[in-house]
Amino acid sequence: MTKIDLNCDLGESFGNYKIGNDEQVIPLITSANIACGFHAGDSNVMAKTVKIAKQNKIGIGAHPGFPDLQGFGRRNLDMSHDEIYNMIVYQIGALKLFCDLEGVTLNHVKPHGALYQMGAKDPKIAKVIAQAVHDIDSNIIFVGLSNSYLIEEAEKLGLKTASEVFADRRYEANGQLVSRKQENAVINDTQEAIDQVVKMVTKGKVTAINGEEINISADTICVHGDGEHALEFVKQIRKQLSTVGVEIVTLGG
Amino acid sequence: MTKIDLNCDLGESFGNYKIGNDEQVIPLITSANIACGFHAGDSNVMAKTVKIAKQNKIGIGAHPGFPDLQGFGRRNLDMSHDEIYNMIVYQIGALKLFCDLEGVTLNHVKPHGALYQMGAKDPKIAKVIAQAVHDIDSNIIFVGLSNSYLIEEAEKLGLKTASEVFADRRYEANGQLVSRKQENAVINDTQEAIDQVVKMVTKGKVTAINGEEINISADTICVHGDGEHALEFVKQIRKQLSTVGVEIVTLGG
Amino acid sequence: MTKIDLNCDLGESFGNYKIGNDEQVIPLITSANIACGFHAGDSNVMAKTVKIAKQNKIGIGAHPGFPDLQGFGRRNLDMSHDEIYNMIVYQIGALKLFCDLEGVTLNHVKPHGALYQMGAKDPKIAKVIAQAVHDIDSNIIFVGLSNSYLIEEAEKLGLKTASEVFADRRYEANGQLVSRKQENAVINDTQEAIDQVVKMVTKGKVTAINGEEINISADTICVHGDGEHALEFVKQIRKQLSTVGVEIVTLGG
Amino acid sequence: MTKIDLNCDLGESFGNYKIGNDEQVIPLITSANIACGFHAGDSNVMAKTVKIAKQNKIGIGAHPGFPDLQGFGRRNLDMSHDEIYNMIVYQIGALKLFCDLEGVTLNHVKPHGALYQMGAKDPKIAKVIAQAVHDIDSNIIFVGLSNSYLIEEAEKLGLKTASEVFADRRYEANGQLVSRKQENAVINDTQEAIDQVVKMVTKGKVTAINGEEINISADTICVHGDGEHALEFVKQIRKQLSTVGVEIVTLGG
Repeated sequence: MTKIDLNCDLGESFGNYKIGNDEQVIPLITSANIACGFHAGDSNVMAKTVKIAKQNKIGIGAHPGFPDLQGFGRRNLDMSHDEIYNMIVYQIGALKLFCDLEGVTLNHVKPHGALYQMGAKDPKIAKVIAQAVHDIDSNIIFVGLSNSYLIEEAEKLGLKTASEVFADRRYEANGQLVSRKQENAVINDTQEAIDQVVKMVTKGKVTAINGEEINISADTICVHGDGEHALEFVKQIRKQLSTVGVEIVTLGG
Repeated sequence: MTKIDLNCDLGESFGNYKIGNDEQVIPLITSANIACGFHAGDSNVMAKTVKIAKQNKIGIGAHPGFPDLQGFGRRNLDMSHDEIYNMIVYQIGALKLFCDLEGVTLNHVKPHGALYQMGAKDPKIAKVIAQAVHDIDSNIIFVGLSNSYLIEEAEKLGLKTASEVFADRRYEANGQLVSRKQENAVINDTQEAIDQVVKMVTKGKVTAINGEEINISADTICVHGDGEHALEFVKQIRKQLSTVGVEIVTLGG
Repeated sequence: MTKIDLNCDLGESFGNYKIGNDEQVIPLITSANIACGFHAGDSNVMAKTVKIAKQNKIGIGAHPGFPDLQGFGRRNLDMSHDEIYNMIVYQIGALKLFCDLEGVTLNHVKPHGALYQMGAKDPKIAKVIAQAVHDIDSNIIFVGLSNSYLIEEAEKLGLKTASEVFADRRYEANGQLVSRKQENAVINDTQEAIDQVVKMVTKGKVTAINGEEINISADTICVHGDGEHALEFVKQIRKQLSTVGVEIVTLGG
Repeated sequence: MTKIDLNCDLGESFGNYKIGNDEQVIPLITSANIACGFHAGDSNVMAKTVKIAKQNKIGIGAHPGFPDLQGFGRRNLDMSHDEIYNMIVYQIGALKLFCDLEGVTLNHVKPHGALYQMGAKDPKIAKVIAQAVHDIDSNIIFVGLSNSYLIEEAEKLGLKTASEVFADRRYEANGQLVSRKQENAVINDTQEAIDQVVKMVTKGKVTAINGEEINISADTICVHGDGEHALEFVKQIRKQLSTVGVEIVTLGG
């Protein structure tokens, strides 16, 4: 039976600032990517989010990002490879201890925002991120953009990987995401997005913007929890994947 | 044979900013309190400091503090007990993973600056800090001001504790440090300071500012590494303790 | 004709984090206290908020606070008087230049959160804050808690002051606010809150929690913009003040 | 008589962290570029540095940089043009108010580190920075890398500019600095460096690394104050420029 994971970025609130509907989306997903206090999240939010994820028995992952709260980790920052390595260790270390205190496993790591995008395109950055995860615990599942250097470099190191796909984003013929700076980057039609997901998950194919059908691995789907529409969309994805016989389970499960 | 530990706050540099002579003082001490990125230190400094401490086979401890880089963690901050608990977990988690990567043990925890002072005087804050350490690993040695609530609350929880004394500070008759806001808080005469240390370590006594001789436990001496004078002072302490037959060893060793 | 100002804390969003309904509440108030990037707000939010306030022709004020984004400036921080002075200059300087670029005047300054509370109770802190404002521009109106040291010290320096009152908070017999840590600190009944406001504004009196009727100066009422209920409450205050012949105008207007 | 300005980055200390020998270098230079709290400096350091610069009657300039204290503003950060504009206004506003309190003029602005380098190479970024300065006060002198977009875009807007040259850096044939990533980027021989400065200042020429003699405008020379060697180097530059009849005066003086 085909299996798929649904992951969502969570624990992104900070102090008095609230983002996301974590408690509502968690029951609908199988993996939580928890912010680690650099681009979002703080130690109180991390403690709480790990607890909620544990209660709902979903997979817990670290979601390390650039030290840029104002930019939410979405602005490229030209850090050296050593700096990237160490900041990933720092962030994962912090989250891992919250997991240890709750007696739950750190199941996966997914880099966030600009770090994710830079790693997807630059094999050296991809390698540094993957190396840090590997050095920490080679059993951690490494989540990265499907068809990207993140997956390629992690596999070279022998890490278990999970190729991530997006329901509502269009793809280039080379397997990369169409840049958000271009029109047509995002699929606005719900049914079209769901059809794309189903096809990626069940057939390992996606239709690129030039009309070409390309191969794509899909181990986990990135979903969003912000707003009523997003929650409804996740429910639709669950329903239609279920209809075609896809099992929704946590990474590695 | 009487044993004593010499501890020093280390890893306090940040980015382009350098503080301390870590490489020079490390060979003279037996325990390093490593800053965890909130009041001082950053992930690069932490990685490097753990490596140097390991090479010199000294004990490694976490030195968590308030999130106040500008104030160097020395300004009281009115955080809730939950906030204190979580920020300690976060900081220790980060440092602990750098230790794990080097295959060394996190031997002790010593709260920093205003957090240390507040915990010394407020049993509720002392308890929160000690509880966090206990929950993380009950084998970690808890370092706190001798005769203070830090030690009292940690012992109630069953933690191993290390009572810290200061060579160059004067004591109140109740065992507390004379506030730096008062004159006579600091001992400027080197021999007087060393004599005080030797007496505390070998006899468990110190002469308070009112002339009274009081009891004081001394498991570890706080020394400083800034400047040539400080390094020379540490060498003198080592020499004179050695002369009276005191063995200088890492906490728990 | 009796006049009153309605002020609201605004521009508290930060990067990707949104707080408040600034665009909805601005048309209902006469003075905006704009966060200056330390406890909330950032340079983009400040630029935008000044523009919106200008378009609505309301008074613009700086709302400096402690450098504590996680704590939203609500946690006491033990800064020295010089540090407080300089951080106020810094924050006001930043906001003032955004005002200059829009050709609008910086009409008032109101300290935020823990800084406001500490200044209300400690005459030395109150004096430092007021001195900074006075040195910057003695025409700036200084907003502080009615009956507090903030007003007293600002008046000693010759600053124009505006005594702030709260619709939904109860008062001690000495004119101070009942601490939020006590029950009965907050008035939950809308009509009771509005009645309190009307009495403070029109008669200069408020009934303290011990039943005593005390004097209180009311130049400006603090209102909130978060949530539909808050906006409705501001509309009710406006309506009932209008009914009793009170004119709602910007401070100094 | 040929005139030249000597500028130095100052006020880069932060809290407990000290960088530079501001008090020693200030008497040797004519313009201070004062950090504004984002990549270095804080409000206390800014207040103090403005005072010292005033006492020594040298020109005061703002030195805005990226919000990246750990990276000291030297890491490229992909901010939008609006974000850059607003963060420059914020930083200049803060420094300008410290100047106003001391009754001194903000004489110039020089972008810092990665912001300076990005502006030198990207005309759109150069224009945003220059536009912010122009909007604030068109009398402010804009300091940028000689032969770069910083100068070109500032001149298009009608700003007074000062072309900056470096004593100890080698130049490409197109007038740009040789990247620090290449060997030969830096001139280590003191006399060679001074000869280059004298030639740039008196003849408007520099020998590029390919041996070609190119034109270069030199209105201000960037010097450093860190360490005894740096101070000695500045003294040598002053002496030899004086010998060839060049007057060392503040920008615009």
